[in-house]
Amino acid sequence: MAEFSPGLEGVVAAETAVSEVDGANGRLIYRGGYLIEDLVPVTTYEEVAYLLWHGELPDEKELDALRQQMAGARRLKDSARKTLMAMEASTDPMDVLRTVVSAQGASPSPARPSLDEAVALTAVFPTIVGGAYRRRQGKDPVEPREDLGHAANLLWCLEGSEPDPQKAHLVDTYLVLLADHGLNASTFAARVVASTGSDLTSCVVGAIAALKGPAHGGATLAARNMLDKIGSAENAERWLNEAHARHERFSGFGHRVYRTYDPRAKILREMARTAAPELHRTAARTEEVALKILHDAHPDRPNATNVDFWASVVLTGAGIPKELFTTIFATSRVAGWTAHVLESLSDLRLIRPASKWVGPEAGKKPAQLAKR
Amino acid sequence: MAEFSPGLEGVVAAETAVSEVDGANGRLIYRGGYLIEDLVPVTTYEEVAYLLWHGELPDEKELDALRQQMAGARRLKDSARKTLMAMEASTDPMDVLRTVVSAQGASPSPARPSLDEAVALTAVFPTIVGGAYRRRQGKDPVEPREDLGHAANLLWCLEGSEPDPQKAHLVDTYLVLLADHGLNASTFAARVVASTGSDLTSCVVGAIAALKGPAHGGATLAARNMLDKIGSAENAERWLNEAHARHERFSGFGHRVYRTYDPRAKILREMARTAAPELHRTAARTEEVALKILHDAHPDRPNATNVDFWASVVLTGAGIPKELFTTIFATSRVAGWTAHVLESLSDLRLIRPASKWVGPEAGKKPAQLAKR
Repeated sequence: MAEFSPGLEGVVAAETAVSEVDGANGRLIYRGGYLIEDLVPVTTYEEVAYLLWHGELPDEKELDALRQQMAGARRLKDSARKTLMAMEASTDPMDVLRTVVSAQGASPSPARPSLDEAVALTAVFPTIVGGAYRRRQGKDPVEPREDLGHAANLLWCLEGSEPDPQKAHLVDTYLVLLADHGLNASTFAARVVASTGSDLTSCVVGAIAALKGPAHGGATLAARNMLDKIGSAENAERWLNEAHARHERFSGFGHRVYRTYDPRAKILREMARTAAPELHRTAARTEEVALKILHDAHPDRPNATNVDFWASVVLTGAGIPKELFTTIFATSRVAGWTAHVLESLSDLRLIRPASKWVGPEAGKKPAQLAKR
Repeated sequence: MAEFSPGLEGVVAAETAVSEVDGANGRLIYRGGYLIEDLVPVTTYEEVAYLLWHGELPDEKELDALRQQMAGARRLKDSARKTLMAMEASTDPMDVLRTVVSAQGASPSPARPSLDEAVALTAVFPTIVGGAYRRRQGKDPVEPREDLGHAANLLWCLEGSEPDPQKAHLVDTYLVLLADHGLNASTFAARVVASTGSDLTSCVVGAIAALKGPAHGGATLAARNMLDKIGSAENAERWLNEAHARHERFSGFGHRVYRTYDPRAKILREMARTAAPELHRTAARTEEVALKILHDAHPDRPNATNVDFWASVVLTGAGIPKELFTTIFATSRVAGWTAHVLESLSDLRLIRPASKWVGPEAGKKPAQLAKR
């Protein structure tokens, strides 16, 4: 039997052509061989979702068909809408998302994951996130709009007012950048669920459950919370030095795979400059000081800024309230989750690793308690 | 980088003292070193759940405290009850369970998994399964009873009439036998979710999602469906030979880990004799013929009967409708899922395996579509 690999670090758990994190060279490759920085200037989220699902970018006709299909799948079915309204308004938006996605995908009989279901699930996330947010605000959810692109419709579902095209563009770029990222923990959770032959909604619900954790999707909020505590560029050095002395981890730095600057962080950093100038100033100074402290403390460790750090600034610039950050991450990543599940169907095999027993030797006898 | 291990077979993904499947010797060891066959005659499900959570069997006082705590946690909170009632009556019971557990555990702010939450989640499963079943039957859910043990309350929640003690005993024994089983796919899913720092409800929802698959929790129903098709002991030989000729897989045989007879199957086989005499006769003859066919076809492969085969007979004897089999499996395994998650907290590390890129070389340029 193999050695125990904590966190399965370095263990290859899947072959995939959906995306590749080339950590050594700081590259993120999407399906078909596209580098993320080549896609960002010319594609919308819908095109990238199509790419992840089909392996090729859509032509104009294919894109129109996808946009129509998504627009037509934005409404919650009656039982899911009632579920959304049944939840307490103060519920964590990720818990609302987990529950309402589960209700939306519930069906009388199990079905094999399909592309149509992937499209439908992806299309409905903004409706749920918007509904959760509006109920937190004491407002009613609005009906999704069929005439808007995915990112603009997301802003509409949150705000219920005509979305600002520049903010929609920021959100769209964020959605493109986060749509897939190799075998991250939530995608792996989706593939573990898929491996039992379960349905696509179950896979996506499992992935949402995993994304919720602070070590995964929750990291963007943690980065923003740190920036809020720092408050200003002028305060960064003092705050970070004190936090370091308290042995506090800096949010937004380091990654299991990247050994150099995360290419997504690089793009978001540039966007943040105009999207949120004031927060960008604080963040840029924070980054500078944090990297120096980390490098001085561990010169041997790669401690580059990760995507969460700059995503928190760009999402702020797009007007996204920070308590929704993880749900917006999910709204992007669902394309990747579903693409991975669909890919795994071609050679489905139960993911059932071994464990190492660290308990006592077998054979202890229970006291003869009468069975009650 | 390590080789690709399909299904992570033989890869050690966790150290655990919750349970150990000693496949070579056909032994299942529960926490503390107890063999399953030593526990079954003297323990109820509540005691075994306590054992998995605490590492020791409870004394009388501890057991009473646990039973009271569980009895007090059986009711759905208002939002979860509304969610249950919002779902279409015909919904797959596993989809109801996934959704209503998610609603029941939804909270305003993320919490670290706790023992109290494990107890509460375990206690509420029968309420949800019973509610899903009764709504399928066009009936209203009944309120859970505080005066009954876990297994008897489960039957009450299904039937709404005084539970038969013998059937409750069958259900209880099934619940004891299935409560944990090493790093099976649903438990592994729970641990993957836990590894991101997510909450306990998210872990359990992820596990339900994984259990739903036909290659995991759905296997008990598949075994019963096969027995239904065979219909009688007299028909077994003909049916199995024809199925084998069609290259059909026999449900209820073979297991990734056991290389000899599954100890749980052995116990259930004996119980089935009196629990469901007619179905036992069909099943015993089916087992005899199936093992012979499998052995003749693959003399080198271990093809022992697995737990699902005989569980399907015992659950039938206990009066459990077959469409609920997977939810009853979940009702047992939730103790193991939560015990594994609580164990993993002591050394939490993100489970983030690597993947092998099988896509084209990076650097393909997208056509200059104007961003729409």
